[in-house]
Amino acid sequence: MTVAIYIPSDESSQEWRDRLARLLPEMTVQTFEEVTDPAAVHYAVVWKPPTGAIAGFANLRAVVSLGAGVDHVLEDRELPAHLPIIRTVGTDLTQRMREFVALQVLLHHRRLPEVLARQRAHVWEKLVTPPAPRRVVGVMGLGNIGAASAQALAGLGFDVRGWARSPHEIAGVTCFAGEDGLAPFLAGCEILVCLLPLTESTRAILNAALFAQLAPGAVVINLARGPHLVVADLLEALASGQLSGASLDVFETEPLPADDPLWDHPQIIVTPHVASFIDAETGSRLVAANIARFEAEGSVPDLADAGRGY
Amino acid sequence: MTVAIYIPSDESSQEWRDRLARLLPEMTVQTFEEVTDPAAVHYAVVWKPPTGAIAGFANLRAVVSLGAGVDHVLEDRELPAHLPIIRTVGTDLTQRMREFVALQVLLHHRRLPEVLARQRAHVWEKLVTPPAPRRVVGVMGLGNIGAASAQALAGLGFDVRGWARSPHEIAGVTCFAGEDGLAPFLAGCEILVCLLPLTESTRAILNAALFAQLAPGAVVINLARGPHLVVADLLEALASGQLSGASLDVFETEPLPADDPLWDHPQIIVTPHVASFIDAETGSRLVAANIARFEAEGSVPDLADAGRGY
Repeated sequence: MTVAIYIPSDESSQEWRDRLARLLPEMTVQTFEEVTDPAAVHYAVVWKPPTGAIAGFANLRAVVSLGAGVDHVLEDRELPAHLPIIRTVGTDLTQRMREFVALQVLLHHRRLPEVLARQRAHVWEKLVTPPAPRRVVGVMGLGNIGAASAQALAGLGFDVRGWARSPHEIAGVTCFAGEDGLAPFLAGCEILVCLLPLTESTRAILNAALFAQLAPGAVVINLARGPHLVVADLLEALASGQLSGASLDVFETEPLPADDPLWDHPQIIVTPHVASFIDAETGSRLVAANIARFEAEGSVPDLADAGRGY
Repeated sequence: MTVAIYIPSDESSQEWRDRLARLLPEMTVQTFEEVTDPAAVHYAVVWKPPTGAIAGFANLRAVVSLGAGVDHVLEDRELPAHLPIIRTVGTDLTQRMREFVALQVLLHHRRLPEVLARQRAHVWEKLVTPPAPRRVVGVMGLGNIGAASAQALAGLGFDVRGWARSPHEIAGVTCFAGEDGLAPFLAGCEILVCLLPLTESTRAILNAALFAQLAPGAVVINLARGPHLVVADLLEALASGQLSGASLDVFETEPLPADDPLWDHPQIIVTPHVASFIDAETGSRLVAANIARFEAEGSVPDLADAGRGY
């Protein structure tokens, strides 16, 4: 039985291969390139796999996504239907995301970009900000990661609300659900954090019509997927003052091309898809455990629902 | 009975005077400049009062410090001994400080200065950082504000320890006390936050000998008072790599002079004493309530101990 691995970086592929080989000593672990017997591949462990590659493994039992999202797998139009997709969601992934959400929200809340600009100009000027209980922060997406992030913000004292497709209950967070819940969720929201899964119904959700419903001068933080955001609408909302700032960790094209104007926009913080990540050491243990459990029981708790897209 | 107010900014003095006048309608509220009958002044509400000014009020019952620290009052060598000093510690002051502590710790933890430098250079490079549970953060000073800040960090998942003169117990925080506790507190500490009161025993505590006991490449965050830090030792520790960064919100001379080299140091974040502050709206209510209670009961819970200096 073979476990085949694909990550766009060869170096990463090899590190994951070596770690999984040690953790799954009874299985053969190879990179996609190294596979000589495609029929022996029972598990494909992937991040952004090339179109059609997975379909080449005729006896595949499951695909393992190296992340919480499965959009990068579902994008493959040749992906065999009904193939189980195992998500990789560890405590580290959740932990890193809630740290990054807290950092980005606090940074805009305390006007750090303006403070740093004053440092560069040697200007001693105190900018007054309300304390967190008087700041409304909205979190879109209330899965494991979104719920943990919303709770971290509530723990820091923010007035936190959350929105998701289906109803949720989270201590300290006012939750809204579905299309009907979107307008009341957005009204008065000063800092908006997007942690949604990318599906056909969330694609381009961060657009001009949504921005217009936020508090004037609101901030948008997109840590989910690039296609959630309509960049042209963001630029227009920043120019008009409807929005006062943004933090973007994800982009339509990644890496963000060196000549993309987003890099130099004075009101946008650009980070290279690092809000959260699974490191090979912790992640390989999660993946190995999921493969072993799937092999023994035919299922795992972290299975994606391909119909919903997450 | 007169309440006299002094803040270095005239505009602020007048705003506080007007707010306190509305909240204490049976008292006369005047700025120090406006006082015509010094003998009628029973309460002096001050931030950094000029030397000797308080001694001019012969019938003073208490000084009210517009902050949690009283060092700026005790610096007045002509201050009458045994005069009660009322500290102003509100939930907003504590709230703003724990936000700012969380922001500064998270930004160094996630290497934001380096991330922003890469944005300026249009470089897409992922910097790997450990999750917060593998990051040791130390908080010096465990009064109301220090304890709340340490707990905010623990809530975000950090491995938090605290140090103070006297023993404390704080859920989720490993506490050390006194001179004997300092070395074990510092050993392995990667991000150090100073929230100590300024006293003769804490002056210059952030010095080369202390830096040498931290983890190599540690970060120092001083949000307490300028004289806690030996600036020359900080610069040397940054140059040698013993420290990798610092955030300074307080300085020996404030405002920090425009030609001070600290503004341009690439490894230092300079902020203009804004980590926490009491805004006039909330603060005037706290001060009025403390004056009314002191007048009725002869004491308040927020009384400073001049012998200890905080």
